[in-house]
Amino acid sequence: MASRHYKLVYWDARGRAESIRWLFAYAGQDWEDVRLPAGQLGRACAQAPLGGVPYLEVDRRPLGDVAAICRHLAHQFGLGLTGKDAWQAAQMDSVVEFIHETARPLYAWIDRRILGKPAQGDPAPEVLISNVAAPVRQLEGILLKNSGGDRFLMGREPSWTDFVLGSFLENLQTVDTDFLEMRPVLEAYFARVCGLKGVAHWLERRPPTAY
Amino acid sequence: MASRHYKLVYWDARGRAESIRWLFAYAGQDWEDVRLPAGQLGRACAQAPLGGVPYLEVDRRPLGDVAAICRHLAHQFGLGLTGKDAWQAAQMDSVVEFIHETARPLYAWIDRRILGKPAQGDPAPEVLISNVAAPVRQLEGILLKNSGGDRFLMGREPSWTDFVLGSFLENLQTVDTDFLEMRPVLEAYFARVCGLKGVAHWLERRPPTAY
Repeated sequence: MASRHYKLVYWDARGRAESIRWLFAYAGQDWEDVRLPAGQLGRACAQAPLGGVPYLEVDRRPLGDVAAICRHLAHQFGLGLTGKDAWQAAQMDSVVEFIHETARPLYAWIDRRILGKPAQGDPAPEVLISNVAAPVRQLEGILLKNSGGDRFLMGREPSWTDFVLGSFLENLQTVDTDFLEMRPVLEAYFARVCGLKGVAHWLERRPPTAY
Repeated sequence: MASRHYKLVYWDARGRAESIRWLFAYAGQDWEDVRLPAGQLGRACAQAPLGGVPYLEVDRRPLGDVAAICRHLAHQFGLGLTGKDAWQAAQMDSVVEFIHETARPLYAWIDRRILGKPAQGDPAPEVLISNVAAPVRQLEGILLKNSGGDRFLMGREPSWTDFVLGSFLENLQTVDTDFLEMRPVLEAYFARVCGLKGVAHWLERRPPTAY
């Protein structure tokens, strides 16, 4: 396969885009990491495909939506990231949708801060955290069931779901610095994902941002 | 491929599950269409996998989330339903996510009615319809761009996105009976999807429900 040029467009933030960056880093795949200033909201929305930012350009062709982008890259990269068969791939799709559904209010909250919008009407951080407690427990249950809690979300080997869950946990930790400490199984899991070759290197060299 | 047993579990309603049924019907695939009484909310949630109802059992193994279910079935059925290559498949994923994002408040509104929950605090139907006007125009734009408006959402041939959009349009029409009449391109498109072999037959024989 000829080398493809990947350009990821998002704000200067981890936010919704970070799972995509972890996936690139894990696969050892170079990408252009475009970080728009928050003031360029209008321009970004005008150029973005359906779904807004983040979006990915593959050889100048745009693709929107984090799940669609990650799934596509995971299939392109191979590495077992979509599981061993179509059924596992479908289970991963289902879990990712559940994570994104759970993460929706948190990402909306973070978006407003990235874009410097007034926070009036936003839920308090404690409310955000309290609302995710039950679904996060369900995700921990999946981890325990699939790998006894000491490997990855869907089994013994990493899959693209780990980058989606890992970056979500990092965002939760940003809002509540005790979040992982209170959940040792997930804390160890998070360290495991962050320690993956490629991901660890990205965490060292990525630009520091508040969100 | 050995024949698989499909069991779809949902309420006695079209709602979120109808796109899955259209896909089965189009593919000429039999499925067990389980319709729980609204009173069985607790039992349904206890048995459902991540994401609640609708869920699909394939040879007794459960899969949650409408998009994950439809994508999996579309891949299994073939028939060109996921496009000609991985890039088209990714574009379809992106469009489906956009449709589900747009449909979210409508489906929440319909859920409350299916389950007979009090409607206090719900948006008025006019507000629901007004809020989807802009994204529905974007979807019409995609239809026009991909097939000149006179074929299907992603091109000349039907794809799984047509069942997701078609059943969403039907739900909009349920809430606002003028919805399609005011949008002739979409009205003709909707008739085209409803007229597909298999789908047309399902529309004749499905149980009549309010939503």
